[in-house]
Amino acid sequence: MAHLKRYLPILDWGRTYSRTDLSDDLVAAVIVTIMLIPQSLAYALLAGLPPEAGIYASIVPIVLYALFGTSRALAVGPVAVVSLMTAAAIGQVAEAGSMGYAAAALSLALLSGAILLGMGLLRLGFLANFLSHPVIAGFITASGILIALSQLKHVLGVQAHGHTLPELAGSLIAHLPDLNLLTALIGVAATAFLFWVRKGLKPLLRKAGLGLRAADFATKAGPVVAVVASTLAVWGFGLADRGVAVVGAVPQSLPPLTMPDLSPDLLGALIVPALLISIIGFVESISVAQTLAAKRRQRIDPDQELIGLGAANLGAAFTGGYPVTGGFSRSVVNFDAGARTPAAGIFTAAGLAIAALALTPLVFFLPKATLAATIIVAVLSLVDFSILKRTWTYSRADFYAVAATILLTLGFGVETGVSAGVVLSVLLHLYKTSRPHVAEVGLVPGTQHFRNIHRHKVFTDPSLLTLRVDESLYFVNARFLEDLLTDRVGRDSHVRNVVLMCSAVNEIDYSALESLEAINERLTAHGVGLHLSEVKGPVMDRLEKTEFLHAMNGRVFLSQYDAWQALTGQPHVAQAAQ
Amino acid sequence: MAHLKRYLPILDWGRTYSRTDLSDDLVAAVIVTIMLIPQSLAYALLAGLPPEAGIYASIVPIVLYALFGTSRALAVGPVAVVSLMTAAAIGQVAEAGSMGYAAAALSLALLSGAILLGMGLLRLGFLANFLSHPVIAGFITASGILIALSQLKHVLGVQAHGHTLPELAGSLIAHLPDLNLLTALIGVAATAFLFWVRKGLKPLLRKAGLGLRAADFATKAGPVVAVVASTLAVWGFGLADRGVAVVGAVPQSLPPLTMPDLSPDLLGALIVPALLISIIGFVESISVAQTLAAKRRQRIDPDQELIGLGAANLGAAFTGGYPVTGGFSRSVVNFDAGARTPAAGIFTAAGLAIAALALTPLVFFLPKATLAATIIVAVLSLVDFSILKRTWTYSRADFYAVAATILLTLGFGVETGVSAGVVLSVLLHLYKTSRPHVAEVGLVPGTQHFRNIHRHKVFTDPSLLTLRVDESLYFVNARFLEDLLTDRVGRDSHVRNVVLMCSAVNEIDYSALESLEAINERLTAHGVGLHLSEVKGPVMDRLEKTEFLHAMNGRVFLSQYDAWQALTGQPHVAQAAQ
Repeated sequence: MAHLKRYLPILDWGRTYSRTDLSDDLVAAVIVTIMLIPQSLAYALLAGLPPEAGIYASIVPIVLYALFGTSRALAVGPVAVVSLMTAAAIGQVAEAGSMGYAAAALSLALLSGAILLGMGLLRLGFLANFLSHPVIAGFITASGILIALSQLKHVLGVQAHGHTLPELAGSLIAHLPDLNLLTALIGVAATAFLFWVRKGLKPLLRKAGLGLRAADFATKAGPVVAVVASTLAVWGFGLADRGVAVVGAVPQSLPPLTMPDLSPDLLGALIVPALLISIIGFVESISVAQTLAAKRRQRIDPDQELIGLGAANLGAAFTGGYPVTGGFSRSVVNFDAGARTPAAGIFTAAGLAIAALALTPLVFFLPKATLAATIIVAVLSLVDFSILKRTWTYSRADFYAVAATILLTLGFGVETGVSAGVVLSVLLHLYKTSRPHVAEVGLVPGTQHFRNIHRHKVFTDPSLLTLRVDESLYFVNARFLEDLLTDRVGRDSHVRNVVLMCSAVNEIDYSALESLEAINERLTAHGVGLHLSEVKGPVMDRLEKTEFLHAMNGRVFLSQYDAWQALTGQPHVAQAAQ
Repeated sequence: MAHLKRYLPILDWGRTYSRTDLSDDLVAAVIVTIMLIPQSLAYALLAGLPPEAGIYASIVPIVLYALFGTSRALAVGPVAVVSLMTAAAIGQVAEAGSMGYAAAALSLALLSGAILLGMGLLRLGFLANFLSHPVIAGFITASGILIALSQLKHVLGVQAHGHTLPELAGSLIAHLPDLNLLTALIGVAATAFLFWVRKGLKPLLRKAGLGLRAADFATKAGPVVAVVASTLAVWGFGLADRGVAVVGAVPQSLPPLTMPDLSPDLLGALIVPALLISIIGFVESISVAQTLAAKRRQRIDPDQELIGLGAANLGAAFTGGYPVTGGFSRSVVNFDAGARTPAAGIFTAAGLAIAALALTPLVFFLPKATLAATIIVAVLSLVDFSILKRTWTYSRADFYAVAATILLTLGFGVETGVSAGVVLSVLLHLYKTSRPHVAEVGLVPGTQHFRNIHRHKVFTDPSLLTLRVDESLYFVNARFLEDLLTDRVGRDSHVRNVVLMCSAVNEIDYSALESLEAINERLTAHGVGLHLSEVKGPVMDRLEKTEFLHAMNGRVFLSQYDAWQALTGQPHVAQAAQ
């Protein structure tokens, strides 16, 4: 039973579900549904898919996540970055707008679902941590710019293509003469209105005496107002006949049962994009879920989250959707609207199903320019270059990783950008640990403490060289210590004993063990003793299983002070460098 | 001048060159030349190239390395593993034995030379350290098996193809009925003889009163004896007409000037194999060079070694060769034969040039079976599965990396094997550091030291939680600490203060800094204080540049004992778990 509960969290919250929970969840669901209708249409537009795909992707996936996910407030569906990545991935295998394009989106959702589910069952949730925070921040910022640029064509009513900054900007400039003035008017007006709602309306409403929450919701309703107003304008003035692109006919139907294209060529071409979409989607989702859970002191299980998101994507694949994940804006609205349990998600799905059945004729005259405007205003809030400044002052390595991620994402697209960011984070970490900080230490007078001889006035003994290595010893830096010691002992003929002080050595891997053996041989050949001090418990447990401790010509001291007392002759005050 | 000397080490040793050096170098060159003639032919056979390619690859490259390399004893030329990797790489783009095959070998050498030279000029020698020792050992062992298997066809006189264990074994078994008995007789006899020379002859000669060095050289001459005897047998009995494959006509010529194929398609297909060959070649070469240099207390400069090997490969590309590197067996022979300076290499090159001009008719009747036998006996000494046992007892992570490398190399070929080994080493390291050892510590009675409460009897205070994190804090484990603390403090309502003892934290990257900020916010919300102790100099320097130290609700203590004195109420003796 406990096992079943782990995989079906609904068994947990379901049995304590109360009337208060029900009314709270219902209210939240109504608010989220209203917000999701235009948003789903807009993200489908961004992904290059027919508008109904956005709605379908919000129905069954929400329900499946409600059954398997562990977050109480997360709202799953199409999100901006994943929609952009979907467009980039399918754009490589099919023509936008073609039948193959929508079918490829289903295959992508299937692969993504399988990957997420597989990672969840293998308990690989920790893999999300292999993306560093600055790299994610840089990626999101660059994606926001690409998304906004990709939507400018709808706002201006021109044709433009591309998945990178140079392509998009070049294409936009080339097609600028084809500008449709009426479309641009609607698009620019909608964008300006939505920016004003976001920046100017809330303070105004607060001044007018509205409560904080009410003002917040009024602000969130901005897109709905823009959608309704511009739809009425297009309908009333017959603008669709004068070149303003509209959403057009959307089938009145519940999500259809669909079968993804399983041809090996297609799946082979989509597997890497699917992997990247899964990772980015998971990272985005888990960050939102953890932030919201922390506010109510609830817990998120990353491995079960993978299963929930995997199920949601499989659901999207078989019901006419495309890759989904837990979205930031919709989840926050859900949370703020008072959603208590995942049942709110199920009610939202019901609301959207009603909309799909009954309301789609109403969006016939909805101009694409308005949808594009809602996307632009939403994603520009993701764009935040301050991460560059913050990492520059704190850690140059992090800065380089962010800068490269931003430049590569803008210049070569989302897939190159995020892959490069991950690889670079790891390489920079390896590079940093490949040249660890090693301090030569001496005894602080009157204590049993040892400190860097270049930072403190300490006792030293010319026959005793003590090095404190500030890093775990592993393959990346194994040779480093070998070279350093060979060099240091070779230059100084007074040294009779070397002590490696291991208080900051958290691991010695097999490569480093071999290096220690080599060091021991070389020092023995020079007639110099090799000793260790302050070796940690787990490290010592391992060393005791090896021949090395017997082969070593010196001893292992519990504390550096023991080593000092045993090995020192006449202490001298060091000529401190400082 | 010092700058010039760095890039042209010959200017250094050349100006002190003495008569003793000259005679030592000449003797070594004669011995190495005699050994290299059959070895070069054999490795060309292994690479699937015409025999002369092996000799050409040993002439100009040796001279170029002598000019630019920093090792005094390294002998550069074709080696077993790189020959196998060459065969695997070119086999994908051209038919073995065709003109395009030899041309592709030149392109591969060109790419490899360019990569090595580029890495040298960018001072990327440290990249060689990103391969862990066990992974290299596993790769060499698996390669040795593949090499031996690939040569069995020549020993038995059958056709067989493939670059993986299943392919090679399956192909051999399928073709076994085509066995040429005379070839098999020569092949098996040569193999048995060479094994006996290696294992049985040396003790025998030593018993007969020969000195250690003389016995060693007699043993090394084994392949020459086998070559001469089997050539005479084939010639004398006319076995070439009875189906015994022989080396055949080899052009009598100095290395020709050749132009590698520069078509972008070919270079594109070879770039990844070239990168892997460069890295493996460099790692093999630098290990040999450093081992030999250490024996004479000389120094090797890894970056300059890259330049030397790069020049050698470029030389091979333009003079009919194929990728080369510093070889283990030839370098050891060179060293043991008393080579003093790289001039020995230049003399060896001269000897091989004379052989290429004058002696090639003598190898017409040399059976390929004998060459294959010399390879098999040489590479089986590389096969050493003990690394599996040694890593199993010492470090399970290292064991998995080795086992995967061996299995993947055998099952999917050298390129997959070595790539997987590198990726796996890095992933396992990241995984290990993603779940660091965190000890809850208390005060050891009568001291100022703090130890793990589960290992020692120590004082604790229920209101004070002190955690010693035994790992640098960076993106891979940033979230870990957040979850751990949330969980620990959530479970225990007595905790009023948390101290993170940072004596083993060698770095806090930007992701970890953000996690610390999140931890601080959560603890503040719980009314719990967050403090740091024993933060290292370099880590503190960085933290002081941030807002975090001001935002933190607690203090930074120089020592954990200071923190204890400031934060503890009434100490209690812990219920030590042990």
